[in-house]
Amino acid sequence: MLTNGTCPKTMLSIKDALEALEGKWKLLILFALSTGPKRFKQIAKEVNGITDKTLSRELKNLETNELIKRTVHDTFPPTVEYTITEHGLSLEKVLEELHYWGLLHRKQVMGR
Amino acid sequence: MLTNGTCPKTMLSIKDALEALEGKWKLLILFALSTGPKRFKQIAKEVNGITDKTLSRELKNLETNELIKRTVHDTFPPTVEYTITEHGLSLEKVLEELHYWGLLHRKQVMGR
Repeated sequence: MLTNGTCPKTMLSIKDALEALEGKWKLLILFALSTGPKRFKQIAKEVNGITDKTLSRELKNLETNELIKRTVHDTFPPTVEYTITEHGLSLEKVLEELHYWGLLHRKQVMGR
Repeated sequence: MLTNGTCPKTMLSIKDALEALEGKWKLLILFALSTGPKRFKQIAKEVNGITDKTLSRELKNLETNELIKRTVHDTFPPTVEYTITEHGLSLEKVLEELHYWGLLHRKQVMGR
């Protein structure tokens, strides 16, 4: 694709994706949720370095984009769980390719 | 990978990648440069919506991360061209998967 000329339609779809996934946290949160539903504190622990305020904002944004689902369980006190949706799981290949490239980048640039 | 459990090492490499590519512009600039070396004004035209100030900052950052190369040609007046490096081209699969996912996301969420 990269060598096939710059197609404005392709650029648009990449822009759509980047706008939905903007920032460094959303994909990391989705990655943490890819192993199963989790509560706020569990996600905060797994996504190293994120503040509660940012996590809260990002979770809302991910819910708006239908990438995760927020479920309130009828316990006492009520418990809230976040689950990745099917649409969220469709990012698997993006995450895989970012993982491979991240390894390469560390070797190429950061590892010096 | 997504269903294989959350591996801290995988999360680290994804974080490395996301930090190097942070924001919505860097990948779009690389995509524009994937068809050949370009001058500042050409890139600004192809990457719709970017301001000169942001483009200038992002080009510097991409150069630091060795994703593009800045070449000054000995003309009168001197001309500057930006070229994608081999390391930049190694993002091809990431861009491809983002493209596919962007199409899906538009259909799923934005297209309603």
